[in-house]
Amino acid sequence: VKFNQVTIVGLGLIGGSLGMALKKRGVARRVIGFARRETTIRRAKAKGAVDDGCTGLCPEWLGESDLVVIATPPPSVPRLAREVARLTRHPFLLTDVAGTKGRIVREVEKILPPRIRFIGGHPMAGSERSGIGAADAALFEGAACILTPTARTDRKALARVSSLWRTVGGRIVRLSPFRHDALVAQISHLPHLAAAGLVLSVSPRAMALTGNGFSDATRIALGDPSMWADICLTNPKEISKALSRFVKEIKEFQECLRKGDRSSLRRKLQAAQMKRQKLIR
Amino acid sequence: VKFNQVTIVGLGLIGGSLGMALKKRGVARRVIGFARRETTIRRAKAKGAVDDGCTGLCPEWLGESDLVVIATPPPSVPRLAREVARLTRHPFLLTDVAGTKGRIVREVEKILPPRIRFIGGHPMAGSERSGIGAADAALFEGAACILTPTARTDRKALARVSSLWRTVGGRIVRLSPFRHDALVAQISHLPHLAAAGLVLSVSPRAMALTGNGFSDATRIALGDPSMWADICLTNPKEISKALSRFVKEIKEFQECLRKGDRSSLRRKLQAAQMKRQKLIR
Repeated sequence: VKFNQVTIVGLGLIGGSLGMALKKRGVARRVIGFARRETTIRRAKAKGAVDDGCTGLCPEWLGESDLVVIATPPPSVPRLAREVARLTRHPFLLTDVAGTKGRIVREVEKILPPRIRFIGGHPMAGSERSGIGAADAALFEGAACILTPTARTDRKALARVSSLWRTVGGRIVRLSPFRHDALVAQISHLPHLAAAGLVLSVSPRAMALTGNGFSDATRIALGDPSMWADICLTNPKEISKALSRFVKEIKEFQECLRKGDRSSLRRKLQAAQMKRQKLIR
Repeated sequence: VKFNQVTIVGLGLIGGSLGMALKKRGVARRVIGFARRETTIRRAKAKGAVDDGCTGLCPEWLGESDLVVIATPPPSVPRLAREVARLTRHPFLLTDVAGTKGRIVREVEKILPPRIRFIGGHPMAGSERSGIGAADAALFEGAACILTPTARTDRKALARVSSLWRTVGGRIVRLSPFRHDALVAQISHLPHLAAAGLVLSVSPRAMALTGNGFSDATRIALGDPSMWADICLTNPKEISKALSRFVKEIKEFQECLRKGDRSSLRRKLQAAQMKRQKLIR
């Protein structure tokens, strides 16, 4: 047992899976969950994700927690951090799981009193599914779990949050909040918008002929539209840069086609193949 | 038994899988394979894809065939069709499996004598793997098999080639060669170039953080670069049109980000999600 009581605010795919993984590995003596809807808490209990839960942020439970994890959509993280801080005078560790970090970490650090030690976090373990129904104790196994310490970060707090994610199977990667946003724009936000753009650009008649290749390439476009709109709008500059670099590559392909330049086209496709092969999967 | 002897020219993923499926279902009394390398023929025999094979186009075997399938890269199809026609005076059915049809069907129809009845074909059943080693008797099950008849097409020949693909599990779709190229540019060639462009635009540091979403979205970029360069350069105009429509969608996303326009962004992501959901997989 590493934590006495862990409180998870938001019992969606990530919050629910974290609760299940913590309970399964016996990392926390007790896991408490907050969710907006009663049914979510009932389902979280049934899946073994939490020991108990409540639809309001309960001050008693917060006061007994040594770790609070905010697992709600990115735009709500600073507001919930402020509320959690207001509701208890006890010191505790605070972390989040939002898919963008620059704005959120800056705002949360501005808000919090020193007794609350905050580490921004982002377990790279989503899927196109969402909600407590998709929660899975194995979700974080082998996943990169990014933590974003800053100059204000307490080293002991960083070590404890690192151990939290390591215990549930994550590989810890430490990045500055802004470096995080630049990298994740490329490998998560850009691919999402590219997949959505692919689907939108294809005619309905053509959709009827698609096979496994198209399905795989566009699966991420199944993700929740509201969540992705929120993620994208908290990281617009880095995503826009990544989109511009991507469009440049597409236009180079177009140029190869216009010129009938087989050797350049083949060279580019081969460079992509070799770079992709390093991922194995 | 529907065919006495089927000859497959080119024993790669498609040719090899077709041979295996024909043998397995007893559709052809005998399957003959031609390949450039001796080892390919040996492996095709070992996998049960062909009864016999040869590294040169053998006139005797061609003469005994009621169906010849050219399963080589697109640019070589017209040349091989001409050679096959030159080597025997017997009538037979001829089809191919090339991923583009407009140029190829036009050229092949120009070349062939009337005794050889040709139907352009394209089983939509590739994968990022290639070669006889990846051949699989189940490859065509549930796959759209596009046939591209023209004004010159013999109706009985079309029915026989349709039954060939139906027997190995394919769903027959009939399209004109040019309509084929426009649709396939959108659902196969565009996604391939988009996946390759994604991989190329991502920094090496960011690649190290990718998860399942990125892997799925870019799997098709593992495809053989020479084959894809050939495919793209036999369909440049339609692919370029598809790329332009795609880039337009990407720029609309960029515009949403620039304006901070959450409702438009969300609406577009939701339209993509709903369109993608219809594919189920």
